[in-house]
Amino acid sequence: MSAFVHDADRLARLGLTEAIFCGSKSAAQIEHILDSVGPTLPLLLTRLEPIKFDELPARLRHQLDYDRLSHTAILAGPPPPTGDAAIAIVSGGTSDAPVAQEAGRTLAFHGHACTMIEDVGVAGLWRLLERQALIGRHRIIIAVAGMEGALFSVLGGLVALPIIAVPTSTGYGVTTGGMTALHSALGSCAPGLTVVNIDNGYGAACAAIRILNSQRARKGDGQG
Amino acid sequence: MSAFVHDADRLARLGLTEAIFCGSKSAAQIEHILDSVGPTLPLLLTRLEPIKFDELPARLRHQLDYDRLSHTAILAGPPPPTGDAAIAIVSGGTSDAPVAQEAGRTLAFHGHACTMIEDVGVAGLWRLLERQALIGRHRIIIAVAGMEGALFSVLGGLVALPIIAVPTSTGYGVTTGGMTALHSALGSCAPGLTVVNIDNGYGAACAAIRILNSQRARKGDGQG
Amino acid sequence: MSAFVHDADRLARLGLTEAIFCGSKSAAQIEHILDSVGPTLPLLLTRLEPIKFDELPARLRHQLDYDRLSHTAILAGPPPPTGDAAIAIVSGGTSDAPVAQEAGRTLAFHGHACTMIEDVGVAGLWRLLERQALIGRHRIIIAVAGMEGALFSVLGGLVALPIIAVPTSTGYGVTTGGMTALHSALGSCAPGLTVVNIDNGYGAACAAIRILNSQRARKGDGQG
Amino acid sequence: MSAFVHDADRLARLGLTEAIFCGSKSAAQIEHILDSVGPTLPLLLTRLEPIKFDELPARLRHQLDYDRLSHTAILAGPPPPTGDAAIAIVSGGTSDAPVAQEAGRTLAFHGHACTMIEDVGVAGLWRLLERQALIGRHRIIIAVAGMEGALFSVLGGLVALPIIAVPTSTGYGVTTGGMTALHSALGSCAPGLTVVNIDNGYGAACAAIRILNSQRARKGDGQG
Amino acid sequence: MSAFVHDADRLARLGLTEAIFCGSKSAAQIEHILDSVGPTLPLLLTRLEPIKFDELPARLRHQLDYDRLSHTAILAGPPPPTGDAAIAIVSGGTSDAPVAQEAGRTLAFHGHACTMIEDVGVAGLWRLLERQALIGRHRIIIAVAGMEGALFSVLGGLVALPIIAVPTSTGYGVTTGGMTALHSALGSCAPGLTVVNIDNGYGAACAAIRILNSQRARKGDGQG
Amino acid sequence: MSAFVHDADRLARLGLTEAIFCGSKSAAQIEHILDSVGPTLPLLLTRLEPIKFDELPARLRHQLDYDRLSHTAILAGPPPPTGDAAIAIVSGGTSDAPVAQEAGRTLAFHGHACTMIEDVGVAGLWRLLERQALIGRHRIIIAVAGMEGALFSVLGGLVALPIIAVPTSTGYGVTTGGMTALHSALGSCAPGLTVVNIDNGYGAACAAIRILNSQRARKGDGQG
Amino acid sequence: MSAFVHDADRLARLGLTEAIFCGSKSAAQIEHILDSVGPTLPLLLTRLEPIKFDELPARLRHQLDYDRLSHTAILAGPPPPTGDAAIAIVSGGTSDAPVAQEAGRTLAFHGHACTMIEDVGVAGLWRLLERQALIGRHRIIIAVAGMEGALFSVLGGLVALPIIAVPTSTGYGVTTGGMTALHSALGSCAPGLTVVNIDNGYGAACAAIRILNSQRARKGDGQG
Amino acid sequence: MSAFVHDADRLARLGLTEAIFCGSKSAAQIEHILDSVGPTLPLLLTRLEPIKFDELPARLRHQLDYDRLSHTAILAGPPPPTGDAAIAIVSGGTSDAPVAQEAGRTLAFHGHACTMIEDVGVAGLWRLLERQALIGRHRIIIAVAGMEGALFSVLGGLVALPIIAVPTSTGYGVTTGGMTALHSALGSCAPGLTVVNIDNGYGAACAAIRILNSQRARKGDGQG
Repeated sequence: MSAFVHDADRLARLGLTEAIFCGSKSAAQIEHILDSVGPTLPLLLTRLEPIKFDELPARLRHQLDYDRLSHTAILAGPPPPTGDAAIAIVSGGTSDAPVAQEAGRTLAFHGHACTMIEDVGVAGLWRLLERQALIGRHRIIIAVAGMEGALFSVLGGLVALPIIAVPTSTGYGVTTGGMTALHSALGSCAPGLTVVNIDNGYGAACAAIRILNSQRARKGDGQG
Repeated sequence: MSAFVHDADRLARLGLTEAIFCGSKSAAQIEHILDSVGPTLPLLLTRLEPIKFDELPARLRHQLDYDRLSHTAILAGPPPPTGDAAIAIVSGGTSDAPVAQEAGRTLAFHGHACTMIEDVGVAGLWRLLERQALIGRHRIIIAVAGMEGALFSVLGGLVALPIIAVPTSTGYGVTTGGMTALHSALGSCAPGLTVVNIDNGYGAACAAIRILNSQRARKGDGQG
Repeated sequence: MSAFVHDADRLARLGLTEAIFCGSKSAAQIEHILDSVGPTLPLLLTRLEPIKFDELPARLRHQLDYDRLSHTAILAGPPPPTGDAAIAIVSGGTSDAPVAQEAGRTLAFHGHACTMIEDVGVAGLWRLLERQALIGRHRIIIAVAGMEGALFSVLGGLVALPIIAVPTSTGYGVTTGGMTALHSALGSCAPGLTVVNIDNGYGAACAAIRILNSQRARKGDGQG
Repeated sequence: MSAFVHDADRLARLGLTEAIFCGSKSAAQIEHILDSVGPTLPLLLTRLEPIKFDELPARLRHQLDYDRLSHTAILAGPPPPTGDAAIAIVSGGTSDAPVAQEAGRTLAFHGHACTMIEDVGVAGLWRLLERQALIGRHRIIIAVAGMEGALFSVLGGLVALPIIAVPTSTGYGVTTGGMTALHSALGSCAPGLTVVNIDNGYGAACAAIRILNSQRARKGDGQG
Repeated sequence: MSAFVHDADRLARLGLTEAIFCGSKSAAQIEHILDSVGPTLPLLLTRLEPIKFDELPARLRHQLDYDRLSHTAILAGPPPPTGDAAIAIVSGGTSDAPVAQEAGRTLAFHGHACTMIEDVGVAGLWRLLERQALIGRHRIIIAVAGMEGALFSVLGGLVALPIIAVPTSTGYGVTTGGMTALHSALGSCAPGLTVVNIDNGYGAACAAIRILNSQRARKGDGQG
Repeated sequence: MSAFVHDADRLARLGLTEAIFCGSKSAAQIEHILDSVGPTLPLLLTRLEPIKFDELPARLRHQLDYDRLSHTAILAGPPPPTGDAAIAIVSGGTSDAPVAQEAGRTLAFHGHACTMIEDVGVAGLWRLLERQALIGRHRIIIAVAGMEGALFSVLGGLVALPIIAVPTSTGYGVTTGGMTALHSALGSCAPGLTVVNIDNGYGAACAAIRILNSQRARKGDGQG
Repeated sequence: MSAFVHDADRLARLGLTEAIFCGSKSAAQIEHILDSVGPTLPLLLTRLEPIKFDELPARLRHQLDYDRLSHTAILAGPPPPTGDAAIAIVSGGTSDAPVAQEAGRTLAFHGHACTMIEDVGVAGLWRLLERQALIGRHRIIIAVAGMEGALFSVLGGLVALPIIAVPTSTGYGVTTGGMTALHSALGSCAPGLTVVNIDNGYGAACAAIRILNSQRARKGDGQG
Repeated sequence: MSAFVHDADRLARLGLTEAIFCGSKSAAQIEHILDSVGPTLPLLLTRLEPIKFDELPARLRHQLDYDRLSHTAILAGPPPPTGDAAIAIVSGGTSDAPVAQEAGRTLAFHGHACTMIEDVGVAGLWRLLERQALIGRHRIIIAVAGMEGALFSVLGGLVALPIIAVPTSTGYGVTTGGMTALHSALGSCAPGLTVVNIDNGYGAACAAIRILNSQRARKGDGQG
């Protein structure tokens, strides 16, 4: 197996550190990567199924902060973020929790706090309307929903903030795999929604970080 | 061309009279059918494109009550229905008007009045909430929406009535052809929605008539 | 894990109580929900696979009325409904039994009786024709069929009642997953069929309850 | 343009003469082919749209027996077949007539008579049941239907004969293009149906001729 | 569980006895069916996975003639057919053997012999050409192939017999699941091929039996 | 035709004024809408095909600022924006120009300037690398590309800014309709890209405006 | 309209000169490009529909060598190539001629001769076998076929040369648009076929040129 | 089980020896094939999952050179190739390693060396640009990438060599199964790429060998 070349430079280039997508890697490949980068580098692993995590050697398992809900693991991550959250993660139901959590863990790994607002699916619209003011107190919304994804359009009509829609693979029959939620987000009648891949909580968090970094740079510019 | 066999018996059997779907028939075939049934039989024609209508001989065009918005034509139809409407047709936008109108014309052809409630897409949720009470005064809802079809789920959570969702082919990109609206209706998180084919205003009206007829029979039973 | 917010209000709003869709929830999430709502609330759980049910703690398993055919579980449900059945559930073959049963259990949970009419696939048309009179003695038909779903169209031409078609995922090759049965139901040449998602016995029952509730309200109105 | 190489040998090899599929050929290409083969060869052209036929030079148009319903043209064809028809062509509705006619013209071109049985869609099941005995007096059935294609399964359960299903592209929404009818035929619960491509009346006729030729050869053997 | 209604009449009606498709039935449902029909009725079971067969009680397993290659089981079947085979089963590769075997077992169950001609995929065209004469000595061809299904077209051009194409789900990437082989068979440039569902060896055998029965009836007629 | 209800309130609610999507509206419907809102309201019309524009009455055509490249029309729009552009629109080829232009016109309608950077498809990578510094001087990137959409991933790896990908329907064969470009954007290996519907230049501009408005509000906050 | 930036450098970099894909460009855009590059640069235009060519100003039409079969135009192209052809273009039927011609014209534009071998579809296998020796006298095969694309696999088993498969959009029903031919080529049982996009005669020629250039470079190396 | 007919002649005919695709064969079938061919024949087995390999009898396992990364096994293969590599295998990430390795093992089995160039995905473009000169020192490129497959287009613009793209099934959501990477390769804006089936490392190697053999033959010719 050839040496893994870690893109350690990415943090400087993009303001984002590299994540290891474990979904299509074997436990042996993951072990090889962790050994290549060494124990001191902050590293985020996504889509690390419990069964694959359990196959890793104990010495590696003990170094990792593993979360069984979101299937993410963090190596040498920062302390938990504090202060007001700029980002709200709004999700439809219990089934969407793993993806919402992946987004939240990715934000925390990069030092950003977030507010989790769960169980606001549109079948009980009052649950969302009651939280409208709370949602509006943030700067960016990550919306997480599966099945038919109607949450995206309703949110898009209610708040003026940037919204990053994350369709989830929750559902059965025609909604199996998340294609319907994805297409609902892309085809929404509410203007200006943006969308990431199905179940891509990690990507939504990265998109939010790109916006925050751009705003931060700008505020620095303005003050210069 | 062989003689067309009209299912004149269907009214007795199903409480529905036969409609002629003109979408895949040539003007010559439609002319042949109209000549076979004779001028006195009530007949509903659907999907009769203006260009095809204009190809019909004048003697037939003059007998038909043709509607250019919904592409329906009625031969020897009943007078307009009067009295309270049992059915509300709720639609998302101007682009859905042809399908909503096809449903309304089919109801009128069978003697049923309806209330048209338009332009209540969820991107401006207040437009729908303002009409919630009006909608609730009916017995059956026909909901017509294209693009991402979020209207179906929101309605399904707001009202307890039977809802017949009609996805429309309005949209572009991933919503082209109506598949996304269809799948949103079928995969809705709101329980108990029913769905008909894309752009099938005629079918939704027939489904509503089946419910009304069943209720009527029942009320007759109860009074007997 | 945040507290689960149960939509207890839904019964009043929609005449339907909330069901917990277990298909995309872990056993830990289901346990959390059951603990949140407490043992006295009537609750319906759907798509609870036997393997997941067996993972629940014994104290919860003993409170649940679990059905291994339909994968439904009921917590504190009502006594079995009695009296004449207003709803007939008509299904094509043995493979469709789990979905038909999910519909039947959902109806029973809401206090409605039903008649089960099984093994009437159209490949042996006489089996269906022999039962035509029996089917016609009900007010609403739930039709359950997989493979090519020809049952829907044949039923739609034979009876004038409201028909709610439930395509099932039974089949192989081109009928794998139920898409063909779904499209057959939606594209039926019989007018006025309505359709729910693939394998959605629960949703079909809810749609039937919406119709019954609307009729009941109406009869009350008429008598007022 | 290189010389067209006509597979004149095919009649001897397969008992079928070559047809020219005009759907993806320009009028110039068709003219070139007709000029290559010369005026005396029997030739069948399929999918020759009226607009393309009208583009051909008059000298060619006059030699062709063109049918505007089925879009077929025959050059130097045989006299109309006489005697009892071994093949019944059973179709669902007026919209399926062009495809049924393509099958009938192909049979006639090869010297075989057929019986046309039209307008027997299953939405009015009695129309089909009334003709069951007539259908049963043939040796092979070509069944032509669009939309949801339920006709195939019902026929397959009623008659023991070889059935060649021809799905048609008639329909809209989910049945657009004929995929649903095709999949219904392939996934039918009735055993032993065979299927050809969408709108392929020509292919169905060829399949029937293969069966007849095989039977004829066999009878010759038996008598030898 | 309601009583299973066996379509015992089917043999008389269609010349085909009913098969039990086990793919979407539980072992408990299969046991129930076998107990309903009793041990003396000839019965064919298809798609009975080894793991499900092994779940059946020993008393049933011992009565069944089970074949682990084709996943078929026969209850009280006829003795092996003798005499010249009217049907050749021609298949592309080792991976297609289970489907070819399902066809062969179905034919044997109905008393028909067949010739198995294997490993004649077109990548080594000479293997097929060497067997062309052998194939031509039959009356009907069942062709079984997966991947790109080129075998169907080559066979169709070489022999004049009725050909029933059975696409198989053999393959990976774009050929996963058999859709490519199916579409190759349906869209073949060779005229008059007929097609059954993916992996449907059972259906192909039934189609062949329909042809044989029709020929037999006819020969009887001719001699009368 | 019922009165059109304009969502004039949307500007206050979302910082976005309503656009009229003309793609699925008839010229008559568009005329009706324009007459409803009156000539003084700023209004943006998208997907107004030249042929439909030419069908409008002259009195309306003269009031509209119509652009034949992007198929947009503006009624009573603001003067052209001045000052430094915060947004760069980066596109792959001449075929993407209409969509890029729709985005640019939507930004201008809302008072935002942009920089157009065209013809930087990755087949000639040096064209993009030469403009990397220019692109980096903006705050938000709208990337427009069709065919295989490789531009999105390359840009995502080169710049740290928020990137809104707009796949276009440019292409043929497997890239017909834009699905490949859409999926490339969603499935990109570069982290944090966001995506809008195919050809949705309007939506990308709205998403950019949501980000700018959120930054502006924030800078105001910071200064308070 | 911004200035078109021609990738004139591509010839040096890749041994291929740039082609202008006109399929998604307006006549105005094409005119603008031609005016930008000037009349002396050799330029290849593909997918230039006759109707669009006829819209160009006469001064440009006269400079272009336009071919109405392949929809290609050449500006200031080289003289026709002479000498032995290294490349054979083998195609299935008349309908594939435009794509085969696009490949041939692209080769000629780059100075390479080719041999056209047409009408060798596998439904008449002898036509192909008769030309096997001729085909084998070349160094590279471009194979062009639509419908089910069986030609690719048969060729792949017969000759050892590099084969570049070009699926065409010829066909109807399941083969509409070329997806079946494409998947047949990709999923072929013959090892080592390579494939380009549907109807991409241009791309196949470029791939052949890449091989020839690599061989030429190598032979130069060997002689150094 | 009938005797397996090995196409031992293929090496002479195509310069390629036959590989056994084990993906859709049972362990029993593989054992049967290995026993048929005998232990001395060089043989390549692909897609032999570890679990299936472990099911083979020990006497066979010991004869096979099995590679757990690529799931390939070699029986009586040649010694490792030496000398300069003519082929570079360029891949995007760790997840693509199994497919790249399958290509490399297939080349080695036929006696060809290759250079493995890994981890050059375009999200970190500098990693690819740094290796551009190394890549250019080969005669043929096999490019292996999953997800959105942007690597193919970037490579195609950078190097003039023949490029064989192998899309992999790496990814999730819209890139699940490799369809997006496949379509990106086919629809690339870089001219002259060729493509093989998803995950088909074996086929890419065979295509490269066809090119090398053609060049070798040619060089022989030139020297004669």
